[in-house]
Amino acid sequence: MDALRTLIESRRFEAAITVLIIINAITLGLETSPSVMARFGGVLTALDTAVLAVFVAELLARFVVYRTEFFRDPWRVFDFLVVAIALMPATGNLSVLRALRILRVLRLVSVVPSLRRVVGGLIAALPGMGSIVLLLGLVFYVFSVMATKLFAATFPEWFGTLGESAYSLFQIMTLESWSMGIVRPVMEVHPYSWLFFIPFIVLTSFAVLNLFIGIIVSAMQEEHESTASEERSAMQHEQELILSEIRSLRDEVRAMRADGKA
Amino acid sequence: MDALRTLIESRRFEAAITVLIIINAITLGLETSPSVMARFGGVLTALDTAVLAVFVAELLARFVVYRTEFFRDPWRVFDFLVVAIALMPATGNLSVLRALRILRVLRLVSVVPSLRRVVGGLIAALPGMGSIVLLLGLVFYVFSVMATKLFAATFPEWFGTLGESAYSLFQIMTLESWSMGIVRPVMEVHPYSWLFFIPFIVLTSFAVLNLFIGIIVSAMQEEHESTASEERSAMQHEQELILSEIRSLRDEVRAMRADGKA
Amino acid sequence: MDALRTLIESRRFEAAITVLIIINAITLGLETSPSVMARFGGVLTALDTAVLAVFVAELLARFVVYRTEFFRDPWRVFDFLVVAIALMPATGNLSVLRALRILRVLRLVSVVPSLRRVVGGLIAALPGMGSIVLLLGLVFYVFSVMATKLFAATFPEWFGTLGESAYSLFQIMTLESWSMGIVRPVMEVHPYSWLFFIPFIVLTSFAVLNLFIGIIVSAMQEEHESTASEERSAMQHEQELILSEIRSLRDEVRAMRADGKA
Amino acid sequence: MDALRTLIESRRFEAAITVLIIINAITLGLETSPSVMARFGGVLTALDTAVLAVFVAELLARFVVYRTEFFRDPWRVFDFLVVAIALMPATGNLSVLRALRILRVLRLVSVVPSLRRVVGGLIAALPGMGSIVLLLGLVFYVFSVMATKLFAATFPEWFGTLGESAYSLFQIMTLESWSMGIVRPVMEVHPYSWLFFIPFIVLTSFAVLNLFIGIIVSAMQEEHESTASEERSAMQHEQELILSEIRSLRDEVRAMRADGKA
Repeated sequence: MDALRTLIESRRFEAAITVLIIINAITLGLETSPSVMARFGGVLTALDTAVLAVFVAELLARFVVYRTEFFRDPWRVFDFLVVAIALMPATGNLSVLRALRILRVLRLVSVVPSLRRVVGGLIAALPGMGSIVLLLGLVFYVFSVMATKLFAATFPEWFGTLGESAYSLFQIMTLESWSMGIVRPVMEVHPYSWLFFIPFIVLTSFAVLNLFIGIIVSAMQEEHESTASEERSAMQHEQELILSEIRSLRDEVRAMRADGKA
Repeated sequence: MDALRTLIESRRFEAAITVLIIINAITLGLETSPSVMARFGGVLTALDTAVLAVFVAELLARFVVYRTEFFRDPWRVFDFLVVAIALMPATGNLSVLRALRILRVLRLVSVVPSLRRVVGGLIAALPGMGSIVLLLGLVFYVFSVMATKLFAATFPEWFGTLGESAYSLFQIMTLESWSMGIVRPVMEVHPYSWLFFIPFIVLTSFAVLNLFIGIIVSAMQEEHESTASEERSAMQHEQELILSEIRSLRDEVRAMRADGKA
Repeated sequence: MDALRTLIESRRFEAAITVLIIINAITLGLETSPSVMARFGGVLTALDTAVLAVFVAELLARFVVYRTEFFRDPWRVFDFLVVAIALMPATGNLSVLRALRILRVLRLVSVVPSLRRVVGGLIAALPGMGSIVLLLGLVFYVFSVMATKLFAATFPEWFGTLGESAYSLFQIMTLESWSMGIVRPVMEVHPYSWLFFIPFIVLTSFAVLNLFIGIIVSAMQEEHESTASEERSAMQHEQELILSEIRSLRDEVRAMRADGKA
Repeated sequence: MDALRTLIESRRFEAAITVLIIINAITLGLETSPSVMARFGGVLTALDTAVLAVFVAELLARFVVYRTEFFRDPWRVFDFLVVAIALMPATGNLSVLRALRILRVLRLVSVVPSLRRVVGGLIAALPGMGSIVLLLGLVFYVFSVMATKLFAATFPEWFGTLGESAYSLFQIMTLESWSMGIVRPVMEVHPYSWLFFIPFIVLTSFAVLNLFIGIIVSAMQEEHESTASEERSAMQHEQELILSEIRSLRDEVRAMRADGKA
């Protein structure tokens, strides 16, 4: 049991798993080529099954070692999910699951520390974006409802339902073909529709811009605070040294004065 | 009267209004679906009317409580306007008002503090943008007049009137189909028109970029100043402590010297 | 003469010129509409001529007052140029000059202080961009020559000459229809042309990004340095006060010691 | 030998090479024009060969002077490579090398110090981007495999092979025609494919954004640290001065006390 823990927490084991993930990434990539599959299909499928077996064994070992603590680490939960996808039967309506098998390769993020740190950083940036993302969502919802009410009758392929409107507005927000593709045709039927679309573009661009600025400022604030507090503590240390020197000097002078009076 | 004020300023009342807004957002969203309307149209319309009645009652209560101060809070004015839109008759030429009813959902911004703060922040960023937005407007006006004079005869669908030119230039500024859609066809008739469009793109991109940089720098300046002044006051406090210590020491030495002479 | 100087430097005169520029902006805008010209053409042309006469008189007055110093202020040179354009005969091949008359409205920048400051700021940002703009120009030139050599034979409409290649690469840099419009068709003839276009996109995006970052960083550096030096001088003042206090204390102690020995 | 070193390291030699590169840039540019080649083809080719001969002689001189140290300086290696390309036979399958001859002009970067500094700065920014570029590559690979598995059968022109999928996803990441050109047609066959593409766009945009923010923050951090450490050392110098003053004062007081006791 302790031997097992030592094994799965060793650097060698981690390196071996990393190599296996990379091999699996290559085999899964090669499987997309029909000509390669025609020739080496058997070998690739066998390799894939072998790697998957190792991953399952590894997860079982972690279960045995960490038990109830297994699900505490979000990366272990992530590993569990991507391996679970590969074990589900990919038949009938679930054939899309076969395409999701490549997600297994994302395990690379959980085993390579520098990638884990980057992803951790990206996820840490999310909470600060909460309010503005909520606001953006609200603006999207309001404009989607308005677009559906205004243009569903005349342009059902773009604004037929709430979902289609939201998709079209997302496209407009990314500025893809917004004018030539969508707004100019709409304006031929509704000449004043630019009063709807231009404010939407300006509003969402401004919101996204502020989202972006918010992340920059908070990232810099954090960085700045850490250097500043370091500096400050160094300076304070010096100042305290000066203060204590002066105080002992004062004590000495006081003692001398007492000597003099005596 | 005071009871009414206590009620409308209570957290519970706010929470209740928030829930009503969310319910109303859902019903207004469902109303965009013809199949849902065919089945539950009556229920949805009734719900909508009921929520609107509550909003009107709420606004009346606020009128009674705040009286002349009602219009001092811009958020209350905003609430008043979006409810007023819903009460206007949406018939004939005003049928577009029916689509504006969903704006009521934006009341969520005025009742959820975090959203109110974000919107407040966005609005606070506007005055600093004043000069550059004015400049951008001026550049747009000048280029629109020029585009109309140069291309109205040959490309009336894009540059026929001042308004159409402004719209086309806005499209070009967002870089949507600027070359394949507009400038290449124009260049087939006016081979040197790139001398007009390329500088316009570079100029407006540079202006928008600087608008953006201006907002970042001022946001950081603000943040930086608050931390810096904090640090500075801490340091100054220490320095003053040192200074006062030295001064009392000097007083003591002076007193001692006087003792010695006596 | 001094009276003339007092006049043209007075706030009232400036305000009057500003109003005239705005009136001129409106008349020049209205002139783009054939229906307005059909009705009020005479009035608008008369107004335009009158305003132009005032501008010429103003420039002459400035010539008389500042003489050789007239061309020292770049804004006055700018005013001179835009008025000169309006006085040139706009006939035959020079009919494009008629469209440039609206540039006169840009005089608003030279008379409104806040706009002058913004434009001054934009121009001040240019020298710092020198090296990277030169590098971008070099990359553009190299890729244009390569594109012309590689694709002139097969795609003469996009890469026929050096100028056409540069234009097409500018379009690709702005990401407008780069793939669907240009690179996919090119790849049907030259399957490996993505090895040319993708690096070009990545390279120029990265260069533009760094141009952008350079401006942000230098803007912040400037702002930061001014606050930092302010803070530093305040701190140093305090420190020098402490030091001088200590030195006078030391002098006093030394004097006392001399007293004691005496 | 020393004379040769003095020559190739002189400012004059550098200036001469710079002029030759610019002349070569112009001749290589003119060579793209068939009409110019028809008239001055002989002169241009002769000039080109002459300049190339000088470059080869210069490189040989550097070889003789620096010997084994020649390949230590990456800029010299760069010079060697771009000259080597020009010497390779550009016949048959290697005719593309003829187009690469213009790369010689990039030698301008290695001889103009300000350009060398800018390129050095761009390259220095790369290592900090390592992890996030690796993550972006991983995301690209995973989505390419998924896209190929999901859409190869129905949209072979966009997602037929792994490479085609990667190219299409790169196009989608740059937002070029992503919706009108690709996702809308795909959605007509696979209605839920937006569940694949929208997350891909949001994910890659967020990653690129963070890449960008990372570069800004590290550029500012560096700049900030250099100013901060300068300031700090100035402050510390002052503080140490104060401390030493106090300590000598203390020594004097101690000495005086000893005098008093004696």
